[in-house]
Amino acid sequence: MSDKRPTPHIVILGGGFGGLYAAKALKRAEARVTIVDRRNFHLFQPLLYQVATAALNPSDIAYPIRSVVARQENTNVILGEATAIDVDRKIVKLTDSEVAYDYLIVATGATHSYFSHPEWARTAPGLKTIEDALEIRRRVLLAFEAAERETDRDAQLAWLTFVIVGGGPTGVELAGALSEIARQTMLRDFRRINPSSARVILIEGKDRVLPTYPPDLSQKAEAQLRALGVEVMTNAMVTSLDEHSVKVGEMTIATRTVLWAAGVQASPLARTIGAPLDRAGRVLVNDDLTLPNHPEVFVIGDLASLKVPVPGVAPAAIQEGVHAARNIERLVRGEKTLPFHYRDKGSLATIGRAAAVAAFGRLHVSGFFAWFAWLAVHIFFLIGFRNRVLVILQWAWAYVTYQRGARLITGR
Amino acid sequence: MSDKRPTPHIVILGGGFGGLYAAKALKRAEARVTIVDRRNFHLFQPLLYQVATAALNPSDIAYPIRSVVARQENTNVILGEATAIDVDRKIVKLTDSEVAYDYLIVATGATHSYFSHPEWARTAPGLKTIEDALEIRRRVLLAFEAAERETDRDAQLAWLTFVIVGGGPTGVELAGALSEIARQTMLRDFRRINPSSARVILIEGKDRVLPTYPPDLSQKAEAQLRALGVEVMTNAMVTSLDEHSVKVGEMTIATRTVLWAAGVQASPLARTIGAPLDRAGRVLVNDDLTLPNHPEVFVIGDLASLKVPVPGVAPAAIQEGVHAARNIERLVRGEKTLPFHYRDKGSLATIGRAAAVAAFGRLHVSGFFAWFAWLAVHIFFLIGFRNRVLVILQWAWAYVTYQRGARLITGR
Repeated sequence: MSDKRPTPHIVILGGGFGGLYAAKALKRAEARVTIVDRRNFHLFQPLLYQVATAALNPSDIAYPIRSVVARQENTNVILGEATAIDVDRKIVKLTDSEVAYDYLIVATGATHSYFSHPEWARTAPGLKTIEDALEIRRRVLLAFEAAERETDRDAQLAWLTFVIVGGGPTGVELAGALSEIARQTMLRDFRRINPSSARVILIEGKDRVLPTYPPDLSQKAEAQLRALGVEVMTNAMVTSLDEHSVKVGEMTIATRTVLWAAGVQASPLARTIGAPLDRAGRVLVNDDLTLPNHPEVFVIGDLASLKVPVPGVAPAAIQEGVHAARNIERLVRGEKTLPFHYRDKGSLATIGRAAAVAAFGRLHVSGFFAWFAWLAVHIFFLIGFRNRVLVILQWAWAYVTYQRGARLITGR
Repeated sequence: MSDKRPTPHIVILGGGFGGLYAAKALKRAEARVTIVDRRNFHLFQPLLYQVATAALNPSDIAYPIRSVVARQENTNVILGEATAIDVDRKIVKLTDSEVAYDYLIVATGATHSYFSHPEWARTAPGLKTIEDALEIRRRVLLAFEAAERETDRDAQLAWLTFVIVGGGPTGVELAGALSEIARQTMLRDFRRINPSSARVILIEGKDRVLPTYPPDLSQKAEAQLRALGVEVMTNAMVTSLDEHSVKVGEMTIATRTVLWAAGVQASPLARTIGAPLDRAGRVLVNDDLTLPNHPEVFVIGDLASLKVPVPGVAPAAIQEGVHAARNIERLVRGEKTLPFHYRDKGSLATIGRAAAVAAFGRLHVSGFFAWFAWLAVHIFFLIGFRNRVLVILQWAWAYVTYQRGARLITGR
């Protein structure tokens, strides 16, 4: 006979890496767990650029959240959008209802930022959602079709010029993949244009691509990008853009396709918590990932700002999700929470076919071995995705044949 | 030294089964061939219901037309929408340009018909395009989510009631697959609702489902549908429908999801040809598939109406496409055209897991063997699709686990 306390209700906002791994870590907790997400699936975001570049299908990298926790009896899923958090009443407001919590994990992530130019969003789509990826795919494929039909030489060149703003991992991956599409995949598809004459231009504001990586790997990445035919511009700021051109300093590039891979800003939900935010709109949290004065509220992933900076990557969000879950279990048992320490397992960025860079502590690798490491790590983390084997097969097929099977222009 | 005639220009409108097989049959023709389609891909329509029911991905059943003819040097592809045909000037008008032809094959197919109720289209989507399929998938998955959140019992039941109008092959396939989703796939996904309590109702105006099949197979199909939990209503006409209910005669069914699988009408392009049309809007053609008084214009597939009726199925369109191509080659050589004769290779309709009906002449089969025949035929005709092996693997996986991997709510 135990004098049981009432079972606590743990609410997790967001089914991304942070939220999902927090929920999984609470599998055996004596608690009711509720995951709230506005989408019904978890997205394996590191491979989203593969959807944008027609190599993978949405369902290869997205998996219903309900399926992930189907056998986790203590866990419930609500499809809904959190619009505000009332930390005093311990309530999350959804569009059309409210959810009360005893403990809360906020993991709603970040979206792209156009800095002081929100009007650029229409012209230069970013890459955060499945819809973003399909829109980018649509625009890229339509650009080649339009070039094939265009008779004016200058207009044709503008359709065959692709500008990617932002030289971080996403920008580098997109640039490499686009160059491969133009130079390999599309080779025989057109009669009037030569797709391999397409220009792919990567624009980075800092003095090197992958600015968060060690400088020697940035150099290697730039060399690999150039080998794939990408034009890399560093120390270059976009000053204006519209549907026909991008202005970089004094230079005007005629282009019909601009993709945005620069800047992130925290989910607007952060502003409703009423806690101090950093410049990127992220919530400043204690070392144990809790909100100041609210030990029952945890903020993790891209939404959290710690005193010791943590990179905005999936492994960090996963570690924080698991740590928040463990701390909640400690609180339930009446123990003290523990501070979070990020364990850097290394950085990996892929550039293209057998091209990548990797930093594992002091060990820096580039080229085929880095690419193979990238592949192994991503396949390993697709665990839980029923289609891991299918994704591997599609990759193998694409690797051997240079084909990209999902070259469909859909939507609108 | 040959006194060559100028190379004729053969224009094919539509990259469906008819148009694509016509183009392939012209591979070695001494002609310029141009395929015009408003989509950049060929769609394997017999499996579209698998996308609508979350078993397959769009790119599993859609393949870029350019890739199909990439190595066919005499063939060009234009992404564009034909708006009118001027048979006197031998010109096809596109939205923003014109294409002149020497020979024309019109293969723009059919779309669904709401008879005298075009306003039903919004409430009851049909299944002709990839976008239709994704919209149906979205509505079905959202209905279960809404039921899970709904507290009012009647409202919950309406969300869990799915009505399919039309008992032809598409309606039967959709009904069977929906019932399987509710009773197997979703089994563990929800906490408040029991998905297997969902009602799937199939409504057919004639006195039996699959009315174009032999009566004994209609009976078998109905029995198999009932075994899967589908409620079959025959001799039943929908008299009105809105977002909350469907009226069938005097009976009102409360439902939030109505799918339309009844009636087809020919592509509106038929009306611009200036030739007599039948009641379904199809062009009345000569037995050699040409337009009366225009031996250089061929109409095939769902758009053509022959004196001896031909069913609106893929094998018929393929046979007509190849026949039109051969007739054009005969005309180019100065020979006479030959009349078209449809060879019926049999009819196959699948109902669900190991359930199907098949008629090969006098041989009627149902159950597992019919299903296996259906599987074999469809896999065989996916030839040319790079992902045939992947599709088989996905089917095998879905068969063993009852999972449907593409359960993503995307769009809008």
